[in-house]
Amino acid sequence: MDDAYVVTEFIEGLVETYPGLQYLDGFPEVKVVIRADASGATYDKVAIISGGGSGHEPAHAGFVGEGMLTASICGDVFASPSVDSILAGIRAVTGPMGCLLIVMNYTGDRLNFGLAAEQARSEGYKIETVIVGDDCALPPLLGIAGRRGLAGTIFVNKIAGAAAAAGLSLADVAAEAKRASQMVGTMGVALSVCTLPGQVTSDRLGPGKMELGLGIHGEPGAAVADLQPVDVVVSHVLKQILSSETNYVPITRGNRVVLMINGLGATPVMELMIAAGKTVPKLQLEFGLAVERVYTGSFMTSLDMAGFSISIMKADQTLLQRLDAPTKAPHWPVGSAGNRPPAKIPVPLPPSRSTKSEESLSRPLQLSEQGRILEAAIEAAVNAVMGMRDSLNDWDSKVGDGDCGSTMYSGATAILDDMKKYYPLNDAAETVNEIGSSVRRAMGGTSGVLYNIFSKAAYARLKANSDSTVTAKQWAEAFEAAIDAVSKYGGASAGYRTLLDALIPALSVLKERLTAGDDSSTAFVLSSEAALAGAESTKDMQAQAGRSSYVSASILATVPDPGAMAAAAWYRAAALAVKAKYEKASS
Amino acid sequence: MDDAYVVTEFIEGLVETYPGLQYLDGFPEVKVVIRADASGATYDKVAIISGGGSGHEPAHAGFVGEGMLTASICGDVFASPSVDSILAGIRAVTGPMGCLLIVMNYTGDRLNFGLAAEQARSEGYKIETVIVGDDCALPPLLGIAGRRGLAGTIFVNKIAGAAAAAGLSLADVAAEAKRASQMVGTMGVALSVCTLPGQVTSDRLGPGKMELGLGIHGEPGAAVADLQPVDVVVSHVLKQILSSETNYVPITRGNRVVLMINGLGATPVMELMIAAGKTVPKLQLEFGLAVERVYTGSFMTSLDMAGFSISIMKADQTLLQRLDAPTKAPHWPVGSAGNRPPAKIPVPLPPSRSTKSEESLSRPLQLSEQGRILEAAIEAAVNAVMGMRDSLNDWDSKVGDGDCGSTMYSGATAILDDMKKYYPLNDAAETVNEIGSSVRRAMGGTSGVLYNIFSKAAYARLKANSDSTVTAKQWAEAFEAAIDAVSKYGGASAGYRTLLDALIPALSVLKERLTAGDDSSTAFVLSSEAALAGAESTKDMQAQAGRSSYVSASILATVPDPGAMAAAAWYRAAALAVKAKYEKASS
Repeated sequence: MDDAYVVTEFIEGLVETYPGLQYLDGFPEVKVVIRADASGATYDKVAIISGGGSGHEPAHAGFVGEGMLTASICGDVFASPSVDSILAGIRAVTGPMGCLLIVMNYTGDRLNFGLAAEQARSEGYKIETVIVGDDCALPPLLGIAGRRGLAGTIFVNKIAGAAAAAGLSLADVAAEAKRASQMVGTMGVALSVCTLPGQVTSDRLGPGKMELGLGIHGEPGAAVADLQPVDVVVSHVLKQILSSETNYVPITRGNRVVLMINGLGATPVMELMIAAGKTVPKLQLEFGLAVERVYTGSFMTSLDMAGFSISIMKADQTLLQRLDAPTKAPHWPVGSAGNRPPAKIPVPLPPSRSTKSEESLSRPLQLSEQGRILEAAIEAAVNAVMGMRDSLNDWDSKVGDGDCGSTMYSGATAILDDMKKYYPLNDAAETVNEIGSSVRRAMGGTSGVLYNIFSKAAYARLKANSDSTVTAKQWAEAFEAAIDAVSKYGGASAGYRTLLDALIPALSVLKERLTAGDDSSTAFVLSSEAALAGAESTKDMQAQAGRSSYVSASILATVPDPGAMAAAAWYRAAALAVKAKYEKASS
Repeated sequence: MDDAYVVTEFIEGLVETYPGLQYLDGFPEVKVVIRADASGATYDKVAIISGGGSGHEPAHAGFVGEGMLTASICGDVFASPSVDSILAGIRAVTGPMGCLLIVMNYTGDRLNFGLAAEQARSEGYKIETVIVGDDCALPPLLGIAGRRGLAGTIFVNKIAGAAAAAGLSLADVAAEAKRASQMVGTMGVALSVCTLPGQVTSDRLGPGKMELGLGIHGEPGAAVADLQPVDVVVSHVLKQILSSETNYVPITRGNRVVLMINGLGATPVMELMIAAGKTVPKLQLEFGLAVERVYTGSFMTSLDMAGFSISIMKADQTLLQRLDAPTKAPHWPVGSAGNRPPAKIPVPLPPSRSTKSEESLSRPLQLSEQGRILEAAIEAAVNAVMGMRDSLNDWDSKVGDGDCGSTMYSGATAILDDMKKYYPLNDAAETVNEIGSSVRRAMGGTSGVLYNIFSKAAYARLKANSDSTVTAKQWAEAFEAAIDAVSKYGGASAGYRTLLDALIPALSVLKERLTAGDDSSTAFVLSSEAALAGAESTKDMQAQAGRSSYVSASILATVPDPGAMAAAAWYRAAALAVKAKYEKASS
């Protein structure tokens, strides 16, 4: 990316994203983002302007909006904006109430903003400036360059913006901003060095190292150390910021504070949140501070630097009110406002709504007619699957991972065992539900989950019936619901070379025969022939799901899909068992 | 960082940051973030739940909040959450209106959310699910795994959340969500591979390479290509998403669309905004689409992956209303709502308020008494500085970069030339202002800016006087304002080994003598002796600012600060010239 254009292109993207922002027509020298609704000619509040070198986005342009900044002046990457740029910004948004310039403590920024302030005053504008130097990384007596402006500036921006929005005078807004700047301390930790546009990243920081007390312009940190766990790093940083020796911030035990965990550009939200989670209890327990607000995110960055900074500001009611005040600035964090509960107690896990537990289930002493048929069908079905173990494994070894037979055998065994122990066979719906539970316990892998989904969906459908005797039509509806659920969550349809290629043709014939008026056991048996035919037809199908999708068509053509064959087998066996029971009953 | 704890620690930091969020007491298995104000027992809207593997933060936990998600179910990094986790979330927040599960199209998520849905239904909950597969990277016929759920899911979450907040029924909310999922297409570009916690980053992607059409779980992209400029990359991605061949999204010329530029974890805001700025005009001009909203940020990430994805969704009024509806979800972008202006025209640069231009200035034909004295003082001052060029350079070569004399000489020459041409010498304030302008044109470096600030601040103070004749007291006040400004913006105080160490003692004596009743020229001369003494005393000072701060005390002790010596010299010469003029006038 060419350095010359990154900032103007950034601003173009910014105003495309946020309709409330606009920029001055002065590219490439004048790079000023303003509120689209604020014009100096009519602006009746104190204008708040901040800015500085670019490369720290979203700071400061992303904080322009009602309730925060009125304008942001953008320099080139890591370079102070020109006096003309700053003047253009002041002239664009400053009304009769005047303008506060919030300047980060870098020589270039101080001088250019200072000169612009004096020039603007000479043009008759009311101007105040506040210089923010919140860095706590260096020993205090290293001179004026020691306290750089860092992420704490964002707090000052917000507080000044809220004070201005509340209608305060320039003097009062400036006083609040200055006070805020004296209450905040910041220190950063970098895990990588940033890459300047068009340049090669410095290899200054070797692997396994971190820099403590870094700046935000690629300058070396105060110290280099071995990488440490995040809580060790956090402890070190907090001690440095809150040191009573340097006395950088007037914070003592018992004070109320707000906290900012600021990502430096390339730090994922997950890592920032983890740092926040470590910092809050330390501040509370080790330093005896009441943490009133936590702001976690990437607010003031250093291009693509990995790492974060911690800012701590002493808080009182006025200041919290300013921080909580609404703003339309796009990058001011949402959801951190308002009093925090004294301690976050996790919400207890809600219980299951089903009151029945497995202990309460038991096999009925006396089976109903339907219970006997159901038992026979399940027994036949699981025996059929158990008998196919080797064939299924053999087919699966050619097109998958070779364990289809073993997995299905485990499930079948569990069903058989559990049925003998506690399936409530006179209640068809609950029995189907228990088949799902047996499968869930015993069968791993995708097929276990799919058969569980199959059972649960059928159960939900069966349970919706008021009558305890399930009609053939109701069985067909439950079968359809089960197939729909497996298709939806498994992501397969007919022709994908899965168990659905046995079950979908079976369902189709079953519905057709029942509608045609066939008796239910005949319809069941006829549909099971369709299941077998469907399973055999998978030989001609290209796999669309699962491991088989990586296998060539010539190999696939030699074997049927084992999942489909297993499904056809249990369905066929169940159908024949039901038919036999009916015939026996009617003979 | 240990993989086992990153997700629970992330959640702990999240709820510390956002008081409106809470989590269920089921760590480490159950990792569910819920709205602190939503309990299934009382919740009177359709609950909206999304989730999936972690590592995509802020998705989905950062989108929990009124108007968006009611709960988010977090799996381990890149691993689907367990059925028990999902069930716990459903039970915690689902009220009588029911619950919509928004599931990203990955086998694990489909199966686990599907099973949880069926289980919850069997417990009597009203549940619907919508599966989102917005990936446009792979050719359409590569099977069910082809369309992964990507950042477009965030749009579906928002639309469903807004529909639920509006009080719609479960069926209607689900229908809106499903429709949204069919309108959106996404494709990603990675510039680096992500690092799994506790693992070494893969070196799959060499330097100078990028992956097109990547997933968000570290899986390889559809293609690897040489790094290209961002507008070439954007064009490629847009063509792929909007291809009429694949027909992934029903978007054609003339349609209205919304755009999301989504960072993948380690991409700075500046780069995302640049991508947004490139994408919008392309969509408008090359594809003939009306871009109604732009969302730029990191919403659905892949740990610390560098790169971005583009999502485009067909929009209509209902959908825009859902996207614009207020939400308390912390990471839903602020400031993108509302109609965008048809084209963003930059705001014209505001003119300077001062009506006078340099052309309008001219040296008066007749000098007043004060004008003559001022001329003599300026002439003497600049001559003194010009005469010291070599000494100043010599001193500066020992403690700085050796150009102090040359720099000061340039400024002095410019002042002398400009004074002869056009300084309005009878107007003291405007003359001082012009000295600043001459300095600004001719003098580089920090000293040029500081002397410019000095002049502007003095000018502003002098201009505040109503009378055209400036009294000694008013000169002293202007001198003080100038020193204050230099101190504030230059960041130095007395004792910092700068020009202030000449000027501050001079000011002090000047004020003292004037208060004591000395005549003004005597007071001026006495104060100039203090300036000389002050400048000499800088030998004993440790430098606190500028390049001298890197020089050892033993070297510093051999030379005075050249800036202080120059200031003392011009001040002394001016004082003597004023005294001479007064004596001549009174003789």
